[in-house]
Amino acid sequence: MSARRALDVTREEDFPAWYQAVVREADLAEVSPVRGCMIIKPWGYGIWELIQAELDRGIKALGNDNCCFPLFIPMSFLAKEAEHVEGFAKEMAVVTHHRLKTEGGRLVPDPEAALTEPLIVRPTSETLIGDAFQRWIRSYRDLPLLINQWANVVRWELRTRLFLRTAEFLWQEGHSAHADEQDARVATMGALELYSRFAESTLAMPVIAGEKPKHERFPGAVNTYSIEAMMQDGKALQSGTTHYLGTNFASAQNIRYQNESGTLTLCHTTSWGMSTRVIGGVIMTHGDDDGLRLPPAIAPRQIVLVPMLRGDEKDDAILGYCDVIAGRLNQANAFHLPLRAYVDKKQVPSAEKRWNWVRRGAPLILEIGQRDVAASKVTFMRRDALRSGEKVASHTEPRDTFIARAPDLLAAIQSALYDEAKQRLTANVQHGLERFEQVADYFGAAVEDDESHSGFKGWLRVPWCKPTGSPLDEINERLKKLKLTIRCAPLGQPQKLDKCIFTGKKAAEEIIIARAY
Amino acid sequence: MSARRALDVTREEDFPAWYQAVVREADLAEVSPVRGCMIIKPWGYGIWELIQAELDRGIKALGNDNCCFPLFIPMSFLAKEAEHVEGFAKEMAVVTHHRLKTEGGRLVPDPEAALTEPLIVRPTSETLIGDAFQRWIRSYRDLPLLINQWANVVRWELRTRLFLRTAEFLWQEGHSAHADEQDARVATMGALELYSRFAESTLAMPVIAGEKPKHERFPGAVNTYSIEAMMQDGKALQSGTTHYLGTNFASAQNIRYQNESGTLTLCHTTSWGMSTRVIGGVIMTHGDDDGLRLPPAIAPRQIVLVPMLRGDEKDDAILGYCDVIAGRLNQANAFHLPLRAYVDKKQVPSAEKRWNWVRRGAPLILEIGQRDVAASKVTFMRRDALRSGEKVASHTEPRDTFIARAPDLLAAIQSALYDEAKQRLTANVQHGLERFEQVADYFGAAVEDDESHSGFKGWLRVPWCKPTGSPLDEINERLKKLKLTIRCAPLGQPQKLDKCIFTGKKAAEEIIIARAY
Repeated sequence: MSARRALDVTREEDFPAWYQAVVREADLAEVSPVRGCMIIKPWGYGIWELIQAELDRGIKALGNDNCCFPLFIPMSFLAKEAEHVEGFAKEMAVVTHHRLKTEGGRLVPDPEAALTEPLIVRPTSETLIGDAFQRWIRSYRDLPLLINQWANVVRWELRTRLFLRTAEFLWQEGHSAHADEQDARVATMGALELYSRFAESTLAMPVIAGEKPKHERFPGAVNTYSIEAMMQDGKALQSGTTHYLGTNFASAQNIRYQNESGTLTLCHTTSWGMSTRVIGGVIMTHGDDDGLRLPPAIAPRQIVLVPMLRGDEKDDAILGYCDVIAGRLNQANAFHLPLRAYVDKKQVPSAEKRWNWVRRGAPLILEIGQRDVAASKVTFMRRDALRSGEKVASHTEPRDTFIARAPDLLAAIQSALYDEAKQRLTANVQHGLERFEQVADYFGAAVEDDESHSGFKGWLRVPWCKPTGSPLDEINERLKKLKLTIRCAPLGQPQKLDKCIFTGKKAAEEIIIARAY
Repeated sequence: MSARRALDVTREEDFPAWYQAVVREADLAEVSPVRGCMIIKPWGYGIWELIQAELDRGIKALGNDNCCFPLFIPMSFLAKEAEHVEGFAKEMAVVTHHRLKTEGGRLVPDPEAALTEPLIVRPTSETLIGDAFQRWIRSYRDLPLLINQWANVVRWELRTRLFLRTAEFLWQEGHSAHADEQDARVATMGALELYSRFAESTLAMPVIAGEKPKHERFPGAVNTYSIEAMMQDGKALQSGTTHYLGTNFASAQNIRYQNESGTLTLCHTTSWGMSTRVIGGVIMTHGDDDGLRLPPAIAPRQIVLVPMLRGDEKDDAILGYCDVIAGRLNQANAFHLPLRAYVDKKQVPSAEKRWNWVRRGAPLILEIGQRDVAASKVTFMRRDALRSGEKVASHTEPRDTFIARAPDLLAAIQSALYDEAKQRLTANVQHGLERFEQVADYFGAAVEDDESHSGFKGWLRVPWCKPTGSPLDEINERLKKLKLTIRCAPLGQPQKLDKCIFTGKKAAEEIIIARAY
């Protein structure tokens, strides 16, 4: 097993199949018998709990308080903002009855319990929260009003993929109301900055933050921003979005305040969300052909000790030795939380346990045998650098040295994973293309074989004239034929721009073009 | 304001109206425009976050891992366990369509998007989780399988009351599968013990734990246990339940394992839940005529500093003084978490701020003026003992003394609230009744005027013969006429029992009889 890979498919052979294999073999989640919905299993949910805890700290630091709004939205609420209903009214779960009855031995919705107004299971909560804002806000003293909720939302998706696209998913949605445009724009960009920082430092996932083109905006938004991460197949994963909603929702829902001179004034609102989708991003950013590699900051177990038991009288000493090490490690802090070390005492062969933790991506895996106990040493593997050539690389160190430097080692693994991904991102954003034909050439190989990983291609960063209306539609049509999308116009634009690669006209900004999830 | 009460209704005058006033004035939650669903506002949700964090620690200590199961349950799943479907199929949200369309300018569920099998919004997840257990469990090595989820659930309720009974509520549901009855019973009682300990130590809410009578069991359970808390109107609030499900769900869903000798064997399963309802319990246990009194362990802000600003040049010194105190307090720990102190800088009169925090139940409220700054002192109120007679009691102490003993002071408030409630519970459980007529006499006054608080009555603890079938139905009828219910048969039964008060026959156990929420 040491030379073979722990998964039966490689990224190179079949990236989508590899992704499914990681999700399955790392025991993260599975398809449920409920169409399009997933079951997040303990290891996957443990990752989500750590993501939640850290992101929640950042959200609270922005000043947003957590609340809980209803799961259901009355159908009429959705209809209030015209673009919003257009964008969302398509695929949603609709509750029409509030009772079942038995008919001919079968359960059926009771016709006498039909709702007068159907309820929608929330796909997002702008309309419901806007209605509360309209009740809560009276004067400028109530502003800014900053809230957040951690919730499940439902969007009826036809083609689902675990974490990346499911009918039900978990997320946080931040919502705020402000006295003026500037304050709302600062909040919108503050949330985007939080997402970037969180993705890079906690998920070790480098991102490019920027503004979405007009046709990719959230329905009802004035501006939509996103962070985009590069997966190992070269595709982009949108990993968080923030929206400046202007006064669109405020007008539709009458969210007004009395300003200091007593005039009733429309609020400017924002919303922003990050979801369980980022777990898919972590898998496709850090995973390798042996399974998942978890950034230590979000690893439910950061250091796993596997006792190499032989069923003889020395086993107790090995177990005791492991418990002592784990106990001491758990006294330390890592990433400003207590370190999470764990002794795997499950009664299965130790080789099986080792590979189990390799596939799950535990950052440090210790294999402790009689020799380690006798010499007061530990033998360990770093999951971020599991192999040297084809062979598994294991390291030996005095026990106390290891314990003392464990937090630093975890920090080093976190950095190494980030650096590796950052290098990939930097090396694979192509600049300097001048004509659209070069775009087709660049992506040519990748497009032919959509579902495989052959011919790794990254992203393009090119200037364009930022058209609207039919010229924009036309550009999208051209991109669509190559299965490409405009991801965003990155923040931090150059002073000087080359000509628009689509039209040859004067360019307005640079954009990222990529295939995407 | 110092002599008047902070609410415009007292417990004595109208308990239900008082409850609503506390929820409103403490800004905990409000009725939403979605029928039967509430909006939990930041102060209420902050309490829930602290409840979650502490209970979650206890659940993890039991060995249960958090997961996430789908929100929806296919209708056919509910029908698998006969009693279960009977108990739950009545009032639930039923999803029948997955798309809306516009028809004559109105949104309607699209008939072409009708689901072939309707989905139920989960009222509880035994059937869905049982289905996963059946897939996950192969051998005795997989047992016990211990999981938990924090989730929203929906039960279509006709008469709703914030926190106590709403269509949607938040809870945790623990689920486990075991190799044999004994192990499952130990898990059931372990969860009950966790709930008791949590209610008493974290919520400062004394409870009586015991077994529910047959007719109050969870649909499909072999035994149901609960913790019952006494509210200030003498009614009981069921505050958490645990269920030993025997092999009922295992048979219905084929949850089997291969035992050590290779035989396929049915698992024994359990489930248990505690919900946002306990926030209602906290309100009705600790609230007074000035609003909420929060046990410090679940107070989002434990110590609130109100600067007494006069709009002159000394204001900055007062604000600086407050910031220093809050900063030092936040370095300390209370209830094994960082202490939560807060300076209220909102631009409203300080008296208004004081009463705002009184109504919200912040355990310690400091009012800091120029004199405090000059003398390095603090002036504070204890919310658990706000008044001396009719007057608000305020205390003055050297600043450093106060800071040093703040964690102890919070612990003392936590204990004082518990002791007060414990005394009420102990003093108001009547023992020694011999005949059923005395029951009617005892509760007489309270029953006549159902909704008022006149004639505080507590609970009865009486022996009964624990009948089944029609004798049980008859007893329930007699109790129902007095608006009474059997709450539970407390754990820790006496060695010797008097005769059954219903039948005069030999008694089997003692039970608690009470009016209930």
